[in-house]
Amino acid sequence: MTFKLPKESLTIMNELVLPNDTNTLNNLMGGRLLHWMDIAAAISAQKHCNRIVVTASVDNVSFKHAIKLGDVVTIEAKVTRAFNTSVEVRLDVWAQNVPSATIVKSNEAYYTFVALDAESNKVRVPELKPETIVETELYNGALHRRQLRLVLGGKMKADDATELKALFFGERK
Amino acid sequence: MTFKLPKESLTIMNELVLPNDTNTLNNLMGGRLLHWMDIAAAISAQKHCNRIVVTASVDNVSFKHAIKLGDVVTIEAKVTRAFNTSVEVRLDVWAQNVPSATIVKSNEAYYTFVALDAESNKVRVPELKPETIVETELYNGALHRRQLRLVLGGKMKADDATELKALFFGERK
Amino acid sequence: MTFKLPKESLTIMNELVLPNDTNTLNNLMGGRLLHWMDIAAAISAQKHCNRIVVTASVDNVSFKHAIKLGDVVTIEAKVTRAFNTSVEVRLDVWAQNVPSATIVKSNEAYYTFVALDAESNKVRVPELKPETIVETELYNGALHRRQLRLVLGGKMKADDATELKALFFGERK
Amino acid sequence: MTFKLPKESLTIMNELVLPNDTNTLNNLMGGRLLHWMDIAAAISAQKHCNRIVVTASVDNVSFKHAIKLGDVVTIEAKVTRAFNTSVEVRLDVWAQNVPSATIVKSNEAYYTFVALDAESNKVRVPELKPETIVETELYNGALHRRQLRLVLGGKMKADDATELKALFFGERK
Amino acid sequence: MTFKLPKESLTIMNELVLPNDTNTLNNLMGGRLLHWMDIAAAISAQKHCNRIVVTASVDNVSFKHAIKLGDVVTIEAKVTRAFNTSVEVRLDVWAQNVPSATIVKSNEAYYTFVALDAESNKVRVPELKPETIVETELYNGALHRRQLRLVLGGKMKADDATELKALFFGERK
Amino acid sequence: MTFKLPKESLTIMNELVLPNDTNTLNNLMGGRLLHWMDIAAAISAQKHCNRIVVTASVDNVSFKHAIKLGDVVTIEAKVTRAFNTSVEVRLDVWAQNVPSATIVKSNEAYYTFVALDAESNKVRVPELKPETIVETELYNGALHRRQLRLVLGGKMKADDATELKALFFGERK
Repeated sequence: MTFKLPKESLTIMNELVLPNDTNTLNNLMGGRLLHWMDIAAAISAQKHCNRIVVTASVDNVSFKHAIKLGDVVTIEAKVTRAFNTSVEVRLDVWAQNVPSATIVKSNEAYYTFVALDAESNKVRVPELKPETIVETELYNGALHRRQLRLVLGGKMKADDATELKALFFGERK
Repeated sequence: MTFKLPKESLTIMNELVLPNDTNTLNNLMGGRLLHWMDIAAAISAQKHCNRIVVTASVDNVSFKHAIKLGDVVTIEAKVTRAFNTSVEVRLDVWAQNVPSATIVKSNEAYYTFVALDAESNKVRVPELKPETIVETELYNGALHRRQLRLVLGGKMKADDATELKALFFGERK
Repeated sequence: MTFKLPKESLTIMNELVLPNDTNTLNNLMGGRLLHWMDIAAAISAQKHCNRIVVTASVDNVSFKHAIKLGDVVTIEAKVTRAFNTSVEVRLDVWAQNVPSATIVKSNEAYYTFVALDAESNKVRVPELKPETIVETELYNGALHRRQLRLVLGGKMKADDATELKALFFGERK
Repeated sequence: MTFKLPKESLTIMNELVLPNDTNTLNNLMGGRLLHWMDIAAAISAQKHCNRIVVTASVDNVSFKHAIKLGDVVTIEAKVTRAFNTSVEVRLDVWAQNVPSATIVKSNEAYYTFVALDAESNKVRVPELKPETIVETELYNGALHRRQLRLVLGGKMKADDATELKALFFGERK
Repeated sequence: MTFKLPKESLTIMNELVLPNDTNTLNNLMGGRLLHWMDIAAAISAQKHCNRIVVTASVDNVSFKHAIKLGDVVTIEAKVTRAFNTSVEVRLDVWAQNVPSATIVKSNEAYYTFVALDAESNKVRVPELKPETIVETELYNGALHRRQLRLVLGGKMKADDATELKALFFGERK
Repeated sequence: MTFKLPKESLTIMNELVLPNDTNTLNNLMGGRLLHWMDIAAAISAQKHCNRIVVTASVDNVSFKHAIKLGDVVTIEAKVTRAFNTSVEVRLDVWAQNVPSATIVKSNEAYYTFVALDAESNKVRVPELKPETIVETELYNGALHRRQLRLVLGGKMKADDATELKALFFGERK
C-alpha cells in the first residue's frame, strides 16, 4: 500500500479524571494529560504505519481551561502528514462535565512519531493523502510546523526555513 | 428533556495493553478488561443520564481470544434502554494488533448502572428512543436480559419471568 | 495427583479502597472490584491447576451495596468444580468499615478459567472432590451454571440445556 | 470492650507479582513488598483498634529469597500486643510459585501503628489477650522489641533497656 | 519577600524506568517522560511561588535518544524567570544506564505555570534574580520564548513579536 | 576501579504526595514512603556498584511526623560503606509543605543491597572511601549496624557482636 487516508488513523480516547490525576485544587495535572495524549497519538500513528512507533517530538501545548476531577476527557488523534520515516499527528482535546452536560475545548497539539522495525531501525511509512479541506490545510501546514521543530531543535538555520519565514513575514516570502 | 437517542451516549475508548495488564504469557488479564469496560460503560451511562452513575450489575461475559501485550483494545459503549432510574449499556470490544493490521472481535457485554443525585438518592433518567433496526432489537432484548438478572439475583421467580421463558421455550410463549 | 480438595484452592484477599478506586461519590467503582475479583479467582484457579490460567468467563454479577473509600474489601475464592481443561471459581465479597466495625456481604460471583501450558495449549486439570455439604451443592450447581454460560454464549441451544431448565422451571423437567 | 483476641485481627493478603513490581532480573523489589506489608498490617491494626491507624515504625526486615514475576505473595498479619495508644503487628510472608507448587517463607516483620480519632488525636486501644503458646511468646517478646525501637530511635538509653540486654546478653541480666 | 534566586527552586528527580513505562521495544514512552517532567517542574515552580501552581504550557520538546527499561532518568528543574502571575521552568533530562555507567543527555524543555490561591484566583509571584551567567542568559531568553508561545497560541501577531524575530532572523531586527 | 567516593552515589528524589498515597486522614501511608525510599536507595547502590542490585534488608525505620497530601517528599540517598558483595545506603527524608514554605525532617533509614550479575550471582563491589567527617562516622557506624542485622537475623550470636556490645555497654568494650 502506497498511501493511506487520514480517517484510517482516527483514534478516539475517553478518560475519566481520577483523584491521582489531580492536584490539591482537584484540577487535572498537565503532565497526566500530555501522557494520555501521547498514548492516543501513538495509537493513531501506529494505525497509519502498521509499525511500532516512538515519540520524536511534541510541539508547544498550552492549557487554557482547568479540567476537574470526575470530568470526561475526550481526545481525538489523526495523522496529518507522513514524511519519510515519520508522521505528524494532530490532537484535539475536550473536557466534559457530565452532570451539567457542558463540553469545553481544552487544547490542540501536534506530536510526531518515528516508525521502527523490530531491530529499532527507522522504516519508510505510507504517504498520507488528505481528503477534506481541513485535512488538506493540516497537511500543508505540517511543513512550517516541521521547520519550526528543526529550527528550535538546532537542526536548521532560521534563514533556511522558508516556510517558517512565510509564517512570520508573510508579505516578504 | 424527555428522551435521548442511542448515539448521544456513544463512547469510544482505546487502550494500549501494557506489561502490568498482562499475565506471564503476555495475555491481557480478564479483570483488567472488565475494569476498562466498566469505565467506558459508566461514561456512556453518564452521557445519557447527565448524572453520577454507579454500576448495578454486569451480565455474563466470555473471553474468546487472547489479547496480547502491545495490542490496542477498542471499546464501544452505547445505552440500549433506560428504565426508571437505571440504564443498560452494551459494550463491543475489539483487539487490534497494529503491526500486522489485524483486528478481532474480543467480546460483547451488558453493564447496568443506577443514576444518583449528590446525596446518593436514585433519580429518574431520560427514556431512550432507538433509531435504527439494530438499536430497536437491542432495546427489545433488554427486557429478557433484565428478567434474567432479576431471576439470577433472586428478585423474581423464574415462572413470572415471561420474557425469559420465551427465550428458553419460544414455542410455548 | 488425580484430584484436589476445595480447601486447597482457598484464597483470601484483603484490599483497602483507595481514592483512585472510587467515583466522585467516594464509592468503589464496580470495574475495580471485578478486577480484584479476577486476580483472587485466578490465584485460586492456579492453586488447583498448578498451571498458568486465563479467564474464560465471568457470570452475572450484581452489586447490592455501595462500598466506601477507606473500607476493607475481603474476597474469598475457592474452586467449585473442575472440567476437562477448566475450573469454576466461586467468590464471596465483603466490605468492612473498620472504625464502625460493620461488615456487609457485597456480592458473590463465579469466574471460570482455562489452564494453559507454556505454549498456550489447553491442558487437563485435576478433578475436584468436594468435602462439605456446601461444597457438594456448589459442585452440583456448577452444571447448570455451565449450561447457562453455553446458552448465553450461543454454544448450546436452550432446549438442550436440561439442567438449566430444571433450575428455572423445575416442574417441567 | 476491654480486650480483643489475636485471631480477631488476623488479616490475609494474596498479591500477584506483576511486571511493574519487579526489577530487570524479574525479581520483586523489596520496597514494593514493604508497601504491601504495610497495607496488610494496617488493616490488621485497624481490626484490633476499630480506628484509623498510622504507621509508627517498621522493625528490621531482611529479604532472604528472590521472589519472581508471576509468583503469589501471601502475607499474614496479626496483632501481637497493644500498648496505650499503639499496637505491634507481626507479619509472615510466603512466596508461592504456582506452576511448580513450591512455597518458600520469604520473611517476617513487625510494624507498629498509632490509633487516631478523626481529629488526628491519639486514642486508647483495647488490650490484647493472647490465647495460644505462640501468641503468648509474641506478646512477651513485644517488650524487648519495643525497647530496641526506643534505643534505636534515641528515646531510651541502652543501659536502661533491661529487656533488651536480657535478649542479647542474657547471662548478665 | 520581593525576589528569589534560581537555586531556591532547584528540584532534582530520579526515576527508574519500569515495565509499564515502556513500549514493546522496551523504550520509555515519551508521554510518561512528559508526565514526570511536569511533576518535577511543578515542584520547582511551587518552591519559587509558595503557591499551588497549574501547568499553563509546555514548549516544543524533542526526544533524541531512546531511554531503556531499567535506566535511571534524572530530571533537573529550575525557575528561569517570573512574570506577573506565572513562572517559566527549564528542565534538563539525562538517562543513565547504571550497569554500564553511561549517561546521555536526553532533552531539555520549558514548562510554564500559573500560581493560584485556594479559590483558584491568579496571584502575584516573587521576581527571579539570576546569579550566574547561564542563569542570566536563560532569564533573558525567556522573553522570546514567551513571544513564541503567544504567537503559537494566537495571542500575539507574528509581526509584533520583535524578540522572536530577533532570535530567528537577527539581521532584520 | 578499586574504590568510589560517597558523593558518586548521591541520589536525590522528589515526590509529590498524591491522593492514592494517603489514608482517609490525608496522611502519606508509611508503606508508600518505604517503597519510594527503596527505589532511591537502589538507584544510589547501583551508582556505586554499576550492577543490578536487590534489597537485602531494611533497618528499623520510625515515622515521627505525619506527611500530608500535596506535600513534596525529598529523599537523599548515599552509600555509607561497601562490604564484599553488598552496600549499605543511608537515607534522609524531608517533607515540605510548599505553600507555607515549611520543611520538616521526616526520618532516616539504612537499606542494604546485594550486587548481582546477569545470572543472579553475587559479585564483588568497589570499596567506599569516605571523604568528610560525617561520611567517616557513617562508615565506622556501619559495622555495628551490620552486627545488629546479623544478630536480629539469627546469623550471629550476640556475644560475638563486639561492635554491638560497645554500643550497649560502651564502657566494657
